[in-house]
Amino acid sequence: MTSFSFDIFSTDKAARRGRVTTAHGTFETPVFMATATAATVKAMLPDAVREAGAELAICNTYHLMLRPTAERVARLGGLHKFMDWSGPIVTDSGGFQVMSLSKLRTINEKGVTFRSHLDGSAHDLTPERSMQIQHLLDSNITMSFDECTPHPATPEEAAQSMRLSMRWAERCKQAFQKRDGYALFGINQGNIYPHLRFESANALNALDLDGYGIGGLAVGEGQTAMFTTLDSTIPALKPEKPRYLMGVGRPDDIVGAVQRGVDMFDCVMPTRSGRTGQAFTRRGTVNIRNARHLDDPRPLDEECGCIACTRHSRAYVHHLFRGEEMLGPILLTAHNVQYYQDLMRDLRHAIEAKTLDDFAAAFHEGQARGDIEAAT
Amino acid sequence: MTSFSFDIFSTDKAARRGRVTTAHGTFETPVFMATATAATVKAMLPDAVREAGAELAICNTYHLMLRPTAERVARLGGLHKFMDWSGPIVTDSGGFQVMSLSKLRTINEKGVTFRSHLDGSAHDLTPERSMQIQHLLDSNITMSFDECTPHPATPEEAAQSMRLSMRWAERCKQAFQKRDGYALFGINQGNIYPHLRFESANALNALDLDGYGIGGLAVGEGQTAMFTTLDSTIPALKPEKPRYLMGVGRPDDIVGAVQRGVDMFDCVMPTRSGRTGQAFTRRGTVNIRNARHLDDPRPLDEECGCIACTRHSRAYVHHLFRGEEMLGPILLTAHNVQYYQDLMRDLRHAIEAKTLDDFAAAFHEGQARGDIEAAT
Repeated sequence: MTSFSFDIFSTDKAARRGRVTTAHGTFETPVFMATATAATVKAMLPDAVREAGAELAICNTYHLMLRPTAERVARLGGLHKFMDWSGPIVTDSGGFQVMSLSKLRTINEKGVTFRSHLDGSAHDLTPERSMQIQHLLDSNITMSFDECTPHPATPEEAAQSMRLSMRWAERCKQAFQKRDGYALFGINQGNIYPHLRFESANALNALDLDGYGIGGLAVGEGQTAMFTTLDSTIPALKPEKPRYLMGVGRPDDIVGAVQRGVDMFDCVMPTRSGRTGQAFTRRGTVNIRNARHLDDPRPLDEECGCIACTRHSRAYVHHLFRGEEMLGPILLTAHNVQYYQDLMRDLRHAIEAKTLDDFAAAFHEGQARGDIEAAT
Repeated sequence: MTSFSFDIFSTDKAARRGRVTTAHGTFETPVFMATATAATVKAMLPDAVREAGAELAICNTYHLMLRPTAERVARLGGLHKFMDWSGPIVTDSGGFQVMSLSKLRTINEKGVTFRSHLDGSAHDLTPERSMQIQHLLDSNITMSFDECTPHPATPEEAAQSMRLSMRWAERCKQAFQKRDGYALFGINQGNIYPHLRFESANALNALDLDGYGIGGLAVGEGQTAMFTTLDSTIPALKPEKPRYLMGVGRPDDIVGAVQRGVDMFDCVMPTRSGRTGQAFTRRGTVNIRNARHLDDPRPLDEECGCIACTRHSRAYVHHLFRGEEMLGPILLTAHNVQYYQDLMRDLRHAIEAKTLDDFAAAFHEGQARGDIEAAT
């Protein structure tokens, strides 16, 4: 059997270069996950996701408990088999989506009662049920069930919410069924208040779980407040455990967070933007729907090795989006996933070479240059 | 330079096994084209289309003249480069879509004036302009510009329409710019009236074009009338030229038409059905949205080698369609395209082995068996 482990083999100031081992293989950190909310990376075949360099996928407890249900996924052999993803899988706990998607929810000490956004059916979600669902899904990294604190929140609201999440984290630890190569992460909360983040870190440290989520950020507080919060939170976390900044983010968010010692990221941005026509490139974002691309024979990003950039012109991808052809989102999703994976690879290399600050400076310079001049 | 040629190297009764050579490579016949209406096979990467066995793509003059325009495709290097399809390409002439999609159309001896279904802009399409557009697109097989006769039509209406199309075919021949490895096909018309089909065949024979479209079928007349029409039409066509039954069809339409001597087919059915949840299998069609597949761990078709059948369960594909996930249409399109290409491959083998009637009997038996029993 393979134990869950996190090995840090290189650092550059606060940044860490490591590897996580799970029952379903390893992933290199810093890592950006493939977002497979409903057991599918939207608009991509699993092989293409792997070929882009992604090693870790994240699925969603809330969505999967409603459809196809955790019990059905378990009967069908678990998430890895169900979605044809043989590598490691993270599942979030459902807390965030219950708050953002479901209807008529009521929350108390025991947990949350809500109605499905799909059909209005009533459901309960408790720390114990969240652990059971994630076990049934066969998730390699289970996230503790937390309350998603609304933003903005007063210090009193944030404290009350964080302390509830910490009590729930303790119940998650009790309910989590330990298996070799499977992990439970607690989620640090406390909004933008350093003393609450510190209190939360201490509570999680006392539970001695396998890693840390850092939750409740990238919800509207802005990048400066997010980075400040990371600066005050991360020193309170045990350095030997992986740190996962949940739901983040834009490329520059990721670069800054890696510089501050974050190891793991997930965000819908590359896939969602790919479906709406926004491409991430080494020279900032490009809206492929813009008419400036109508006659442009060049690729989106000359330095990118994805199928869109090696095989197709901007003019063609523009044509696909204008015609609402599915191949448009397919190509742009593939590109954005490749871009994010390339960024993580470059960040890992820079940490190994201890040149992360130089890399970050070059990254910001590239982003600031803006897109190439329009074709004439 | 490569000349356009059609070599028949095996027959089984009326059925022919051949190979067409073009400036962009060869394709084996009987062939089913990959439908790439707007320069994209919907929901498929070009590599996947090729890997499924497709050798010939068909694009649409009407759609492409409106967007991105033929002149723009020409500036970008032609359709092969634009859509990353290095193999042969057929373009239809636009006649069918002008009749079925455009608005406020008026037709006279010169051609058709219509308004775009996209933005209401006014356009003319004449035999000469259709030839010019298909030349700009760099189509290997140009189809003559014809009038799509409404169905049902009286013999008088059908005759008038067919004779107009024959006069237009002559103008197409005059306007077509000959190049090595490029062909112009005339389109046989005449509705379901044998004497009109015969008259049309004679008119086309006099023009001595490179091949025959058989148009105006599969428009509601039913399979029996279609086969009867083929039986009366095909003997009037010169046997050394390829015969392309336009817009056909269902698998059993194709089997019957191959038995009658048709060499080429195109139809939106495999790709369109793939997007709406209908799969073609060796045991008939399957609606993957049906709840009977909820817990079914088996593939759509045990004998199929596509990505959906080798890697995913019915339960998973059902889940994707229920969630309106793009991977559902992606997988089912890949499956249907594979099914059609496998069918054509098997038909070609059967003609070579002179066992086409046996193959057809086994095919019909398989289709009649219906889908496997639901999983329990």
